[in-house]
Amino acid sequence: MTGTNHRILLRSRPTGIPQPDNFTADTVPTRPPAGQEVLLETIFLSIDPAMRSWMTENPGYQQPVPLGAVMRGGGIGRVLESKSSHFQPGELVQARLGWQTHPTLPARYLQKLDLTRGDALAWIGPLGLSGVTAYFGMRDIGAVKPGDRVLVSGAAGGVGQIAAQIAGIEACHVVGIAGGTAKCVYLVNELHLDAAIDYKTEDDLSAAIGKACPDGIDLDFDNVGGPTLDAALLHLRPEARVVLCGRISQVAADPPYGIHNLGQILTRRARMQGFQVFNYHDRYEEARAWLAARHQQGRLRQRLHVLEGLHHAPQALGMLFRGENNGKLVVQVGNIEGR
Amino acid sequence: MTGTNHRILLRSRPTGIPQPDNFTADTVPTRPPAGQEVLLETIFLSIDPAMRSWMTENPGYQQPVPLGAVMRGGGIGRVLESKSSHFQPGELVQARLGWQTHPTLPARYLQKLDLTRGDALAWIGPLGLSGVTAYFGMRDIGAVKPGDRVLVSGAAGGVGQIAAQIAGIEACHVVGIAGGTAKCVYLVNELHLDAAIDYKTEDDLSAAIGKACPDGIDLDFDNVGGPTLDAALLHLRPEARVVLCGRISQVAADPPYGIHNLGQILTRRARMQGFQVFNYHDRYEEARAWLAARHQQGRLRQRLHVLEGLHHAPQALGMLFRGENNGKLVVQVGNIEGR
Repeated sequence: MTGTNHRILLRSRPTGIPQPDNFTADTVPTRPPAGQEVLLETIFLSIDPAMRSWMTENPGYQQPVPLGAVMRGGGIGRVLESKSSHFQPGELVQARLGWQTHPTLPARYLQKLDLTRGDALAWIGPLGLSGVTAYFGMRDIGAVKPGDRVLVSGAAGGVGQIAAQIAGIEACHVVGIAGGTAKCVYLVNELHLDAAIDYKTEDDLSAAIGKACPDGIDLDFDNVGGPTLDAALLHLRPEARVVLCGRISQVAADPPYGIHNLGQILTRRARMQGFQVFNYHDRYEEARAWLAARHQQGRLRQRLHVLEGLHHAPQALGMLFRGENNGKLVVQVGNIEGR
Repeated sequence: MTGTNHRILLRSRPTGIPQPDNFTADTVPTRPPAGQEVLLETIFLSIDPAMRSWMTENPGYQQPVPLGAVMRGGGIGRVLESKSSHFQPGELVQARLGWQTHPTLPARYLQKLDLTRGDALAWIGPLGLSGVTAYFGMRDIGAVKPGDRVLVSGAAGGVGQIAAQIAGIEACHVVGIAGGTAKCVYLVNELHLDAAIDYKTEDDLSAAIGKACPDGIDLDFDNVGGPTLDAALLHLRPEARVVLCGRISQVAADPPYGIHNLGQILTRRARMQGFQVFNYHDRYEEARAWLAARHQQGRLRQRLHVLEGLHHAPQALGMLFRGENNGKLVVQVGNIEGR
């Protein structure tokens, strides 16, 4: 089988929010798989805040994407041609496919989707890496327990939706922060959060948090950093946990926002901890089993914001950092049902 | 026995650094002990940063000292007269004596000094509450382990000296931050730290930390907060621990300094945690046994800065917050050897 691989390459490193001109497109012939390799068709690409750090020179915990290379990105693909006995044409897999329509990858980098747990949409959604991130952040780092008063920022985003629902499943009082009425209505009406705060219309975010969490916060699951985190700190209860999962508000901030209320960590004997999901790699199966069971019970959902076509990927990251996505942001590259 | 009790009362609540005119002095007759009470002679009063929070209306974790009441403070006293079978005249005790020469207190509030572990100077020093604070902060919250690269700010202060020595005993590479040449020389020459940084003479504190800790920091034991904490964050190693023990630099800061480098907690998967020693009350004996054993081996010392006379107490807190003390600050009220 020969064909064309449409690719999107990293052209320049961003300052602030990634722009479409940080990328360039090209086409190359598909590369037939060699021994233990697989040729794939990309179906979905997940668009995640962490991707911006991969575009910079010092991501801190991973190698940067080299200039001129295919942009790194995870997603779901279908096997077209396999030189591995472990994969057959037509099978769906999860992998770091990169921003390209037809990657050829070593079989050891692929993970077959367990379709008894969920379909391709579930695997790019609640069973995907955002869900796994929320699972470890909420349960391991956050040590969530029944009755906790939980605040989730970026609650309508990829990780936030799942984090908030996990807290709800654990019988917590859950308040989400999101930007815009539509997102807030979704959080309360569809995901059944106890309350949602629209940070775009609140003049005094701390007062709004105080109103929604009158007894304070046991667990702050923070995806945004900056002033939202600062306001939440004012409402910590004794021995509160603050999970630093992301800081999407600060990507274009230079210098970063100064956090004034860190003294609350001391006064409240609180714990603030950062994490990255990749360090839980050995326990992904645990997370997926937990998430899949709740998903199948209908207790765990995720709204996706789907952009159609690989050519939308370069603008997608900017949408994410400007909060223009309404749900977990995904680029659909291929057909779910197969050709 | 009748006599005079010299007292120092809280007159007004401080804004910024406590001033002598926040206090007023008076004298009253000593109060003879009733049943299960003990009349004491104060020998030492410990002057600690936490005392300022007790002077404010909302200390957060304790009741404030009422206006017009004797200022709260811990120290060491000698039993003069006892209506408790557990205490005999002449015995030395540790208690919240308050800023007064002759308190009368319920026996249940007193803890007899174990003089086999150390004398009165040891008990106001390394075996006192500063030492116990350092023990739990370094070992429980900081989870110190051999080989850790440890940074201690406020390293010449009451808690800092002990924290730094505990890290040394645990076979860590220990760097202290303090203000002034004398303190830094003391830390290296007398307490055997690997290096000391004089923040008063360093234009670029982060560069100085980088030079003293070229491989980064596994454990930051922070007593000061503000720009010192911010600079330390830039040098965290993966999975570093940041112990928030105090924030003496921020007591007069309004608004508090904005911490810009909190993103490092996320990037480095670090943990930042606050604590207060009072929550370890049930485990003080464990700490004292550990500290006393090292003290008796000559491996744990503490320089005291002693002010003679109760009338110096009102100025002592200001000295502490201006960093004018050279060692753990103590007011000596009575004679160690007894009358």
